[in-house]
Amino acid sequence: MNSLVIEFFWDPASPYTWLAATQIEALAARTGATVSWRPFVLGKVFEATGNRAPATVAAKAKHLFKDLGRWAALYGQPLNFPKVFPVNSIAALRMACAAGATGDSGRFALAVMRAYWVDGVDIGQPEALVAAVSAAGFDGAALLAASQQQPVKDQLRANTDEAIKRGAFGAPTFFVGSEMFWGNDRLVLLESALAAAAKA
Amino acid sequence: MNSLVIEFFWDPASPYTWLAATQIEALAARTGATVSWRPFVLGKVFEATGNRAPATVAAKAKHLFKDLGRWAALYGQPLNFPKVFPVNSIAALRMACAAGATGDSGRFALAVMRAYWVDGVDIGQPEALVAAVSAAGFDGAALLAASQQQPVKDQLRANTDEAIKRGAFGAPTFFVGSEMFWGNDRLVLLESALAAAAKA
Repeated sequence: MNSLVIEFFWDPASPYTWLAATQIEALAARTGATVSWRPFVLGKVFEATGNRAPATVAAKAKHLFKDLGRWAALYGQPLNFPKVFPVNSIAALRMACAAGATGDSGRFALAVMRAYWVDGVDIGQPEALVAAVSAAGFDGAALLAASQQQPVKDQLRANTDEAIKRGAFGAPTFFVGSEMFWGNDRLVLLESALAAAAKA
Repeated sequence: MNSLVIEFFWDPASPYTWLAATQIEALAARTGATVSWRPFVLGKVFEATGNRAPATVAAKAKHLFKDLGRWAALYGQPLNFPKVFPVNSIAALRMACAAGATGDSGRFALAVMRAYWVDGVDIGQPEALVAAVSAAGFDGAALLAASQQQPVKDQLRANTDEAIKRGAFGAPTFFVGSEMFWGNDRLVLLESALAAAAKA
């Protein structure tokens, strides 16, 4: 049997996506699956579906920090809420599309999200973004240049449109074939489905 | 040390509350805690906080049935989406307040939610509601009569106001002292916190 693929639609603007990103490769390893890291634009998904970020409800926003801290502690992962929030993640996502073409998309995604959610880098600023991904071993300047090419921009738009068409309304969103899972808090359901598929 | 108490704010109109309700007593037993079942009016919580039910976003609504089915399968619990949805749960919640005064609140809550989420009873109809709770061993007619007394109505309103004041914006909502947890999908965090508290 071919290995199952988890398509992981991610946007570094989303804290729950960072949390899930810290877990997804280990989950894939446990279930014999592989991860396909797919950058997409969460803001466009919200626009298209009429969904909105949790922080738009005041009582939810107040609770959000506590909830994020609990998940981070459960996972044993760092998470420092950045001073700049929300952030413009378009440049980072386009660079991710460019990095993806070199087959290094997962490592790039984790580097960008760590820069924002752990080190507080304002990834909406191209200079800061280039410095952060260069420090993680990428050629930041080359990726920034590549990210300004039309085919790379088109790729990001196509990823986003595809996710919306397949039913996405938030982030992180996972697909295993046509089966969609939404949210860091559904990793338990994703793992259960992969384990069942591996048995079958 | 005194046993820790999980205050479980529930409204039978919420499917994720039914899912969590099927798990909460076992979770409490594992962690040495006890459950205090507290009826409240989710619609009033939405009104007060500006939050809204997930089904108000079309793409979320479409995904909701699949998501609920996955949790039910994970828990090994039945869940049949009722024909009447949303439902008017006020009479059921007032009867729960009346039943709570007799110390049988958890068993009543589970009976009402099972009637609605498993057997498809329209619990917004007093006759159907009385028949369902009577079949579960309660004196349905007596509870319905009691539920029409002003102090019982006031109790339900007070529970709701208290939950909002303490930060609730949805259901199910759990408190352990001042620590709030929201959602069936946060049972893992609730259990982790209780286990840590038991060790301390």
